[in-house]
Amino acid sequence: MPPAVQLETIGFAELSTLLAAIFERHGTSPHVARCLADNCASAQRDGSDSHGIFRIPGYLSSLASGWVDGRAEPVVEDLAPAFVSVDAAGGFAQPALAAARPLLEEKARAAGIALLAIRNSHHFAALWPDVEPFAQQGLVALSFVNSFACVVPHGGHSALFGTNPIAFAAPRAQGQPLVFDLATSAIANGDVQIAARAGHRLPEGYGVDHHGQPTREPQAILDGGALLPFGGYKGSALSMMVELLAAALTGGHFSFEFDWSGHPGAQTPWTGQLLIVIDPSHGAGNNFAARCEQLIARMHGAGQQRQPGDRRYQQRLRSERHGINLPADEVNRLRRLAFGDA
Amino acid sequence: MPPAVQLETIGFAELSTLLAAIFERHGTSPHVARCLADNCASAQRDGSDSHGIFRIPGYLSSLASGWVDGRAEPVVEDLAPAFVSVDAAGGFAQPALAAARPLLEEKARAAGIALLAIRNSHHFAALWPDVEPFAQQGLVALSFVNSFACVVPHGGHSALFGTNPIAFAAPRAQGQPLVFDLATSAIANGDVQIAARAGHRLPEGYGVDHHGQPTREPQAILDGGALLPFGGYKGSALSMMVELLAAALTGGHFSFEFDWSGHPGAQTPWTGQLLIVIDPSHGAGNNFAARCEQLIARMHGAGQQRQPGDRRYQQRLRSERHGINLPADEVNRLRRLAFGDA
Repeated sequence: MPPAVQLETIGFAELSTLLAAIFERHGTSPHVARCLADNCASAQRDGSDSHGIFRIPGYLSSLASGWVDGRAEPVVEDLAPAFVSVDAAGGFAQPALAAARPLLEEKARAAGIALLAIRNSHHFAALWPDVEPFAQQGLVALSFVNSFACVVPHGGHSALFGTNPIAFAAPRAQGQPLVFDLATSAIANGDVQIAARAGHRLPEGYGVDHHGQPTREPQAILDGGALLPFGGYKGSALSMMVELLAAALTGGHFSFEFDWSGHPGAQTPWTGQLLIVIDPSHGAGNNFAARCEQLIARMHGAGQQRQPGDRRYQQRLRSERHGINLPADEVNRLRRLAFGDA
Repeated sequence: MPPAVQLETIGFAELSTLLAAIFERHGTSPHVARCLADNCASAQRDGSDSHGIFRIPGYLSSLASGWVDGRAEPVVEDLAPAFVSVDAAGGFAQPALAAARPLLEEKARAAGIALLAIRNSHHFAALWPDVEPFAQQGLVALSFVNSFACVVPHGGHSALFGTNPIAFAAPRAQGQPLVFDLATSAIANGDVQIAARAGHRLPEGYGVDHHGQPTREPQAILDGGALLPFGGYKGSALSMMVELLAAALTGGHFSFEFDWSGHPGAQTPWTGQLLIVIDPSHGAGNNFAARCEQLIARMHGAGQQRQPGDRRYQQRLRSERHGINLPADEVNRLRRLAFGDA
């Protein structure tokens, strides 16, 4: 029987403030620290463990290596009635999105649809926090972000694509938005790392070892192996599309283009990101949120009990009511990172 | 040894003219006939057999049943700087798209991105012909169309979603555009029908029988069974997104909403369609077509020999050089439908 893990309960605001103190102490501006901390604390609150405090060491080693600029000032460019671009200036994607968000939303409402092209940016977080806020304002949002070469194209032999997630958010007439965030790889990198730590084997079809042979061992995937796309050639085609939309269209790097070997500890992919935001109120779909509710009712009726996002919302509710449970030694480690001896 | 099938070679223009004569004779306007014939002949030319002349009986029985209006006049609505809507008036989606295409392209170039919401429309064709022309003009295009309830949501027990394809087209600096068109079901309905005719069994995970049990028999899927989404819960989430974008956002019907039981022979889903068109020339991605070429070169290098669309372009080239080979009795049947005794 493993020893009992001592838990500490912490509120969202307290966790976010603690994380912001860590980021700021390790080289970010106060504003960037707040953006990253809110994102990371939200993931932890909602049970997205692979994008919660699990990511802190990666953030800090990337900052320490000089690979990412924690004080970058994003530059927003208003290029056309429905086209906004932002140069993240080698910093994180989240503050770049925050800087462009008001203009993007204004254009989407005025033009019916608008896009935001983020380039020269580092994205190391879950993608759903980038789209959910638009749906909470009655808008439909899609986002695409590429990462680092770790996925073998269908029929190929070596890694080229990133895990390249697609996130979608839609408003509902009742309840929280319908939101999904899915890697176009068969599994996310963070989940491979978590499986390796836990000593769990993976299902078949998730990855290959460094010889390109199928493997179910997460550590063999991490040690020079690679992931496979989800759903065979279809997932591979979608992953290719993400490279084109998130990198080629924005002016960012493809997942295979950047070289971080001169920055030991660097873990944050230096790529691009695309957001597409639609205002459904313009046309015959102006009852969109009610129609979304009708579809969900029928999905329940067809036997799909849990909709995309449901698990996160349930965990969020528990966290809001009872606080976020974390291993006490993890919280102490965070406190030392924020306030302890350097 | 099966008896040799006698083949007849026919040019694209001749096939398209023949098909237009068939459509017009069976109740469409000359313009609608030309739209449908070009689409159907293109699919046949490019080897998309399940959307070529194989579909003619379904078109004709749908027209004969009064389910679809072959003379409908689409009404284009200019709703916002980047938002076009078109009421297909109970007719086919292709003439509705043709009517709105100039305004959609103009808006995409001016605003950077634009959408077209088609509703009250019947789509019975391949989706790639709807997006490829935009990429030939240097634009990036995405389209989503829902169909009729034949796919079980992941974890569910009864059919709700359509096969709900997603099509994507991107311009290349050299060669034909990069285009894919993928059903979010594990297999397209047309391919199930072709497998049933050919007596082939399907791979596992493609469908269920009328008891909801997994089956590899195409006929069992057609006889009250249903398809499964591709890639498990991820494909199911994408299929749900297609319902929302193609139907809820446009004002069209969900795949489960229309009742064609009073129209024996009706086969054309009465739903909606969304197109999103992006002009990459506005931002730092203004070298998009060259970047697309770079990605494709690396995909070749990673061992992916055939890119999305390659097989169609190769078949197109053969058809343009040598004509389209069809069984002679099929061509005679088409001629009788076009010119023979009623």
